[in-house]
Amino acid sequence: MPKVRFEPTGRTVESVREGETLAEITARAGVPLDSVCGGKGTCGRCRVIITSEVAPITDEERELIPAKDLERGVRLACRTKVDRDLVAEVPEEFARAGQLILEKADVDVDLDPLLRRVQVKVFPPSIHFPVGDYERLERALDGIVPSGKLFVPLRVLRSLSELLRAHDEISILLRGNEVIDLTAPGPKSDNGVAIDIGTTTIVAYLMDLSSGKEICVRSEMNPQIGHGDDVISRITFAMERPDGGAILQSLVIECVNNLIDACCSSAGISTKEVYEVVAVGNTAMHHLLLGLDASPLAHAPYVPVVTDAIDTKSVDLGINVLPEGYVHTLPNIAGFVGADHVAVLMASLRGESDRPRLVVDIGTNGEISLVCSKGIASTSCAAGPAFEGANLSFGMRGTEGAIDHLYISDDMDVAYSTIGKAKPRGLCGSGVLDAVAEMFRTGILDSSGRIVEELHSPRILVRNGESRFVIATEKESAIGEPIVITQNDILQIQYAKAAMYVGATVLMERMGVIRDSLDRIHLAGAFGNYADPRSARMIGLLPDIPLEKIEGIGNAAGTGAKMALLNRRVRDEASVLAEKIEYVELAAQPGFEDKFYSALFFPHLDTSLFPAVCSETGRG
Amino acid sequence: MPKVRFEPTGRTVESVREGETLAEITARAGVPLDSVCGGKGTCGRCRVIITSEVAPITDEERELIPAKDLERGVRLACRTKVDRDLVAEVPEEFARAGQLILEKADVDVDLDPLLRRVQVKVFPPSIHFPVGDYERLERALDGIVPSGKLFVPLRVLRSLSELLRAHDEISILLRGNEVIDLTAPGPKSDNGVAIDIGTTTIVAYLMDLSSGKEICVRSEMNPQIGHGDDVISRITFAMERPDGGAILQSLVIECVNNLIDACCSSAGISTKEVYEVVAVGNTAMHHLLLGLDASPLAHAPYVPVVTDAIDTKSVDLGINVLPEGYVHTLPNIAGFVGADHVAVLMASLRGESDRPRLVVDIGTNGEISLVCSKGIASTSCAAGPAFEGANLSFGMRGTEGAIDHLYISDDMDVAYSTIGKAKPRGLCGSGVLDAVAEMFRTGILDSSGRIVEELHSPRILVRNGESRFVIATEKESAIGEPIVITQNDILQIQYAKAAMYVGATVLMERMGVIRDSLDRIHLAGAFGNYADPRSARMIGLLPDIPLEKIEGIGNAAGTGAKMALLNRRVRDEASVLAEKIEYVELAAQPGFEDKFYSALFFPHLDTSLFPAVCSETGRG
Repeated sequence: MPKVRFEPTGRTVESVREGETLAEITARAGVPLDSVCGGKGTCGRCRVIITSEVAPITDEERELIPAKDLERGVRLACRTKVDRDLVAEVPEEFARAGQLILEKADVDVDLDPLLRRVQVKVFPPSIHFPVGDYERLERALDGIVPSGKLFVPLRVLRSLSELLRAHDEISILLRGNEVIDLTAPGPKSDNGVAIDIGTTTIVAYLMDLSSGKEICVRSEMNPQIGHGDDVISRITFAMERPDGGAILQSLVIECVNNLIDACCSSAGISTKEVYEVVAVGNTAMHHLLLGLDASPLAHAPYVPVVTDAIDTKSVDLGINVLPEGYVHTLPNIAGFVGADHVAVLMASLRGESDRPRLVVDIGTNGEISLVCSKGIASTSCAAGPAFEGANLSFGMRGTEGAIDHLYISDDMDVAYSTIGKAKPRGLCGSGVLDAVAEMFRTGILDSSGRIVEELHSPRILVRNGESRFVIATEKESAIGEPIVITQNDILQIQYAKAAMYVGATVLMERMGVIRDSLDRIHLAGAFGNYADPRSARMIGLLPDIPLEKIEGIGNAAGTGAKMALLNRRVRDEASVLAEKIEYVELAAQPGFEDKFYSALFFPHLDTSLFPAVCSETGRG
Repeated sequence: MPKVRFEPTGRTVESVREGETLAEITARAGVPLDSVCGGKGTCGRCRVIITSEVAPITDEERELIPAKDLERGVRLACRTKVDRDLVAEVPEEFARAGQLILEKADVDVDLDPLLRRVQVKVFPPSIHFPVGDYERLERALDGIVPSGKLFVPLRVLRSLSELLRAHDEISILLRGNEVIDLTAPGPKSDNGVAIDIGTTTIVAYLMDLSSGKEICVRSEMNPQIGHGDDVISRITFAMERPDGGAILQSLVIECVNNLIDACCSSAGISTKEVYEVVAVGNTAMHHLLLGLDASPLAHAPYVPVVTDAIDTKSVDLGINVLPEGYVHTLPNIAGFVGADHVAVLMASLRGESDRPRLVVDIGTNGEISLVCSKGIASTSCAAGPAFEGANLSFGMRGTEGAIDHLYISDDMDVAYSTIGKAKPRGLCGSGVLDAVAEMFRTGILDSSGRIVEELHSPRILVRNGESRFVIATEKESAIGEPIVITQNDILQIQYAKAAMYVGATVLMERMGVIRDSLDRIHLAGAFGNYADPRSARMIGLLPDIPLEKIEGIGNAAGTGAKMALLNRRVRDEASVLAEKIEYVELAAQPGFEDKFYSALFFPHLDTSLFPAVCSETGRG
């Protein structure tokens, strides 16, 4: 059985399975190695330096790894079968870095959780009242639980007898009509956890169910990322291996358990004092969490196994909280509009009027809903990962050294800020957005998206026939080369913004809402909250409405999950909402291609749709 | 770690736990060794011959083992701590023999099981009908399951997607509104198991749920018997050891699994084709099966943890049938009137009028119900184990060599039959009953129960000041000594029959039913079915009614369990029945002691209550 030792930590993995690749081992061993393609050998990110003897270099490696790196032993972990003992090192620049995570999820909802704690006196039995323990408990709960509806699971029932012999009062934890815990009387700590399972990030909020207050929040990268950055690569992984789904499920469950553990440790409570978990995620994350078959999500007609809300005993799912407690997942809307978007909608709608608004969550898969008095229509847009900093020449996640905002002066000087105030290593989503918006505003891009080479600026270069614009010079950059935006990068942004814009406007048409009557655009999620609304409007990502109407609403998926944890009516409302939403399949809309083509322009082929942008740029 | 080898089989137990006795090891290793007291060192039954070196003889052993046996190495297994390697042999006469088991449980009920199989077409999804798998299944079941009531457990839901992609129709196994299995379309074998968990015997009936027919029946001794013959010794065992309850639970569950396995093998089906188990037993057996605390049953006011019917997932209980299938236990009535008596009542009442009848199950703990137009009253009588052949000088279970019936001629000759036509080894319950009845009828006993020594028969002996009557002479006997009934044995029978009679008549008084209006006495269980009604009436065990009104109804507990398996309304009826039954605590009745004293006489102190007996015996 071969072994792998990772340097410089000396960490050794001994239980290498037959045919396993080095990438699979890093994913399993929690060694933070980058990967975008999920082990297909196409992204070239999972680079390691192998210092021991190893199999010959593959064609994929020859193509994806520069010669000078090949010479110093750089290989692709996903192409390296571990057929002998190996010593490997992850070069710093290919280690998966920690990411800025949007944890802020304010919640303002009446406290009325599904869980109730009651303390009741249970009459002792006697020879003249020889009534069973359970039946006396039932009588003690008369008026609290409707007659005939009480349910006490066997595992809880097993503790009843001893408790009743030791105490005349007992403390009962009810979830609806089910008793999920029985304990001695006295003060308790009653807690729940809201979890937002993002494709990239998992955030857990530990909530005090007695006060409704957030006790603490913890987040981690979604460890499934070792098997692909986006949902499709993960579903593919789950489909291609018989145990693929089980591997992804156990990764997310382990991560959730770690986060709950970390929250509880920090708060000084036991994980057994967590009684309920509300989890949201996109439909694929939802299915992988519950161990449902996600493969139908990968091809038309993209139907989920289930859209209804689901309650599962935590013990059945392996979530380490009170074993008889439940994991509640909010309903999904469609294959690409999941429970997280339902949560976003719940957060956005809370206590608000039904004046028309767009609720937008921009990601690799963007979700948009239009809410108005006629109802709610939702759609998903295949925006691609450009706004997450992926698939661009110098795109990166929101980690240290990422350019997150920038400004281009009239003489084409670029002023930028970076995360952690470090030397720049690339551009994250909000940085790319600013770059494109500023290039357009300053005329470096024409409305078709072409880089205007004719400007003859030292910042405009042409390499291998492709134009590029220098954001940070080689001297400024931390990576030994200039950080640029290429013509192809611009195209990726055009695709992404066109998809989002068409999604929004198709919904508006469908519901008969015109731009001027839009009361608000709510932006959920990390990109939406860090992005500059002015830039988003400038490139035509969003309809041209006054900037004060565009509003980041934090991690609204987390907010919605918290709301469902704290108020049971929110769950009913979410189910009603998910049912009444009209899901609009963009690709099936008449004229979709024309609309998409027109939206590829900056800000749009029909400039009359963007009066504010035209007046700002003086173009159109 | 010491080892124990059993001769002559050579079976060796290596994993001896610290402080374990030889009796515990035989129980755990399935070595069939007799025991009545459950390891308390008081019954002297668990005799083994130890041929290796061993600790000194204890006082209990000196008292309970005859000197000549002590000389040949006979010891009590429950008094022998295994502190070194041992070689032990179980003498044939102390091996626990197989017992005649009453398996006959006829059932006549409409076939309407809670389980339904339906085969439905599920509409495929399309881009214009992108509805989730679960939601399409829900629509397919429209009209079969009420709207909004469908429940598909997560484990079943996980199989839905793949099935729907392979088939346009699927076969659905519904239990009420819950889908417990999903399979490809086609013919199926749908089965259930009814189980009667007796203190001594466990019987399993494999039933075809499509036809209602019994496919096969298997029975085994209840393996808990190694920890005590009666419920009180078992509850004591469960209370005295921290893992006592868990040990007893795993023994019964293992036995149930073995029986189900044996039934399925014989029928050529998989255990996964068994979808539902209905189990009945007395309240203690019920609690031990479900892992509930049985200790409150051991002391006043004898309240059960629960009397309601319980449904438990078979997977949660470790019963090896379809994992999502259920184990249903019928309701209990009280601490000493359990689900088995509810089953007996259901079997007795089926399709019958409400003319007054007694339903009697005679055992160590006798259960009696009086059914009449005013309702049902039930009680339990601590009859003691005499009618089960225990605690008598030559009592034994209904195994080979047991005298099961006998007749005493006017010249005091005894004609008897034995089980298996073997040489007699003792008397089982029905034999003891006949012996006492015949002794009374022929004047060997007077009405106070005294053996009339003055008859000067060679069959009447006095040893150590105690009279005894010889049933089988030393020459006839298989055990090298005469088989006798002693004065003390008669007293045990008097206690037992008085308890039963008082139970029956207290219920009759309570409900205002007089002897002449009794339409029927139904006798359930092994003793009730093998006993001669004439003998039972002769000694005053039962009220004096015409013999043709006394009727054995087979293993009625098994019949009732089968009925509940085959017809879901029976379950509702059983719950209604269990709720409306008036439980009468005998010991709390005014005048109970006087009544009991009067009933100690043969047939009764007040002979006017037994006109037929008086006319038959010419006494009274």
